[in-house]
Amino acid sequence: MPSDVSRITSVDTYDIRFPTSRELDGSDAMNPDPDYSAAYVVLRTDADDEHEGHGFTFTIGRGNDVQVAAIDALKHHVIGRPVGDLCADPGSLSRTLIGDSQLRWLGPEKGVMHMAIGAVVNAVWDLAAKREDKPLWQLLADAAPEWLAGQVDYRYIADVLTPDEALTLLKRGRDGAAQRAVNLRATGYPGYTTSPGWLGYSDEKLTRLARQAVADGFTQIKLKVGADLEDDVRRCRAARAAVGDGIRVAIDANQRWNVDEAVEWTRALAEFDPYWIEEPTSPDDILGHAAIRQAVAPTKVATGEHVQNRIVFKQLLQAGAIDILQIDAARVGGVNENLAVLLLAAKYGVPVCPHAGGVGLCELVQHLSMFDYVALSGTTADRVIEYVDHLHDHFADPVRIVNGHYVAPSAPGFSAQMLQESIDTYSYPDGAFWTADRAAQEQEARA
Amino acid sequence: MPSDVSRITSVDTYDIRFPTSRELDGSDAMNPDPDYSAAYVVLRTDADDEHEGHGFTFTIGRGNDVQVAAIDALKHHVIGRPVGDLCADPGSLSRTLIGDSQLRWLGPEKGVMHMAIGAVVNAVWDLAAKREDKPLWQLLADAAPEWLAGQVDYRYIADVLTPDEALTLLKRGRDGAAQRAVNLRATGYPGYTTSPGWLGYSDEKLTRLARQAVADGFTQIKLKVGADLEDDVRRCRAARAAVGDGIRVAIDANQRWNVDEAVEWTRALAEFDPYWIEEPTSPDDILGHAAIRQAVAPTKVATGEHVQNRIVFKQLLQAGAIDILQIDAARVGGVNENLAVLLLAAKYGVPVCPHAGGVGLCELVQHLSMFDYVALSGTTADRVIEYVDHLHDHFADPVRIVNGHYVAPSAPGFSAQMLQESIDTYSYPDGAFWTADRAAQEQEARA
Repeated sequence: MPSDVSRITSVDTYDIRFPTSRELDGSDAMNPDPDYSAAYVVLRTDADDEHEGHGFTFTIGRGNDVQVAAIDALKHHVIGRPVGDLCADPGSLSRTLIGDSQLRWLGPEKGVMHMAIGAVVNAVWDLAAKREDKPLWQLLADAAPEWLAGQVDYRYIADVLTPDEALTLLKRGRDGAAQRAVNLRATGYPGYTTSPGWLGYSDEKLTRLARQAVADGFTQIKLKVGADLEDDVRRCRAARAAVGDGIRVAIDANQRWNVDEAVEWTRALAEFDPYWIEEPTSPDDILGHAAIRQAVAPTKVATGEHVQNRIVFKQLLQAGAIDILQIDAARVGGVNENLAVLLLAAKYGVPVCPHAGGVGLCELVQHLSMFDYVALSGTTADRVIEYVDHLHDHFADPVRIVNGHYVAPSAPGFSAQMLQESIDTYSYPDGAFWTADRAAQEQEARA
Repeated sequence: MPSDVSRITSVDTYDIRFPTSRELDGSDAMNPDPDYSAAYVVLRTDADDEHEGHGFTFTIGRGNDVQVAAIDALKHHVIGRPVGDLCADPGSLSRTLIGDSQLRWLGPEKGVMHMAIGAVVNAVWDLAAKREDKPLWQLLADAAPEWLAGQVDYRYIADVLTPDEALTLLKRGRDGAAQRAVNLRATGYPGYTTSPGWLGYSDEKLTRLARQAVADGFTQIKLKVGADLEDDVRRCRAARAAVGDGIRVAIDANQRWNVDEAVEWTRALAEFDPYWIEEPTSPDDILGHAAIRQAVAPTKVATGEHVQNRIVFKQLLQAGAIDILQIDAARVGGVNENLAVLLLAAKYGVPVCPHAGGVGLCELVQHLSMFDYVALSGTTADRVIEYVDHLHDHFADPVRIVNGHYVAPSAPGFSAQMLQESIDTYSYPDGAFWTADRAAQEQEARA
């Protein structure tokens, strides 16, 4: 059996940057000019099936090279690994990467080094799903509960979630899973859109895009807030007027506030019936979120896109600090750690509404929510995946939205693969786009 | 005035690694084979005084190159800055570095990127103290409370510490400061030693070094624990026998345990009267530390060397999770953030006992504790700075220990400057040591 002896032969990295700051796509109160970027990794093997594993960390520009260096620092743990063993147990690699005692000092389990681990681990899952000829959500939903429970690292969360409890939750999730998979393929998974709400957009553009979102079948939109209260009042009023009362309008402060400011500002916008306030303060402030949640109810509190690992998610749940848990596919240590987070959320009965957008985050995270629906939480009630409508055309298997729902991917893998042409064009600093851009700037400087 | 127009002309970085793993110096339950390293940065100027600013991040080997890349990513914020303005207000650079919205995505304020900020900010303080012709502790102790209060970033901690409260604490700290500075210069600041307690050492070596520590005037030693309970019982018994009842014996698990394990293990060692249990679990687990502290009293709970920023320290204090707060000079965002942490500790009345050791951490952190004694907390009661007796000979102004006390530095600066010969010898991979080491290994491989 040749595939049994095949090995990982290379771990290739790419610094890919899109010039999104020029259109103010993605602008919010903390991130005025993001250049959406990916520290991208491809695992190649000597198997005769030609499958590759693709993964990435999403960044917003500067520092993407640091993230690439961090992925490079992990290569020696991956190259030479037997592909069959690796794909049969991605958790073994996850434990090795997290357990590298020297690299661990740079976190532990947070920031640049941990996101690099996430990129590599996600690439393994992409490869594993391709080899199984299944989209990742289905691979996870079909897996034996015992195997899935064994993919989770219980260190530092065992006081709240034991392996036995995880297994019980996963077994419970199997009841009715087959029917839910049929439902998922038929109607998809509900999404919501942030496209109308970027801070850099005019009120006219906001109103137009908000109406379009409702016409497109979305039942929730999101607005960025937090830069200027008067502006926020005006924009929330415009958005509510555009969508009417039956549509949920979430607001997102992107960590702009201290605890007291968060309470005051959120209350000042309460008349527009915001569904949730997202990232009201630092993602590190568990007790701060708990205080804010107490004070702004019935507006819900949501966070997670910058939450560094399962240990902080555990505490957000323990402290009753959040109503909505927002996983991100590429912030924590990859699929394995997100399994832990989904299990924690399931234990507490807190809905998971993933963060997405950026570069490829929609493509990745849909798989995790779809697995959660089919084989863990068993419901999409009050659950929506964020949708942002840019940069999808750079992916080989881009997300598809129909009637406000994510269509369940059918192609094998984690939908992580970027088109080679996009990689070539947007590689920084020497891809075709950036080379031409520099030439144009130099010409302008001379003129 | 030529110095007014001088600017930062270069930010030079060095990847420096010492082969400490070969002696098992620094071995503990999580870090079996550290190669103590520094991602080192030198700020150079065009001033005619030839002063340089030195700073670094401490790492334990692999990944030191990632840390260097992160410092490099900050250079454009520093080069060209007027030296006078920079040194008159290091907080302005700190805010710029933390506020770089694109780089912020890689944290925020944690891990590789945040430690890089700390290295650069600390280098500025080194330069500022040299230009003032004062050791850093004295620069801080002499500074106007209003200016010091303005060096702190209150974002995300203002719910617990307002600028007014900080100012009040700093003004209170001025009462009697002159006399305390005299005391400090006369008797130094109390230290404790971890040198006897590394996991890799034999019981004989432990006993010998523990007795030596007492003979050297230390009133506290520390043992690494957490790998094997039977070993720990034997080692704690040997240590207690060696030092007698009047000496404090702290134990340090280096994050090895889950919450329940931490409680059981610490209770199992209670008969040897451990003074504190350090890093019983993940540094991210605020609620976990609070639970452990409840359960293991009267043994005290200490943590901080891996606590990522002021926001987590704030919560550890809010939650009553620690008895001892352990700052690290090079983990958070430099002197400015450590000022915030010292102020938080002062507000809660929690003793600060810094983490040190590694490469140059003793050299740096002594300044912060000495400032705290002279002009903030006003006391050394129950306060000790960790001391480890290796690698000091690589520094231009190494720490000096007399009768178990750190002697107050008198040389201008932050004691951060490494000898040029050490930089040249241990630069990785092309310094003289590593080049010779590779040659020897290749020769061995051929033999």
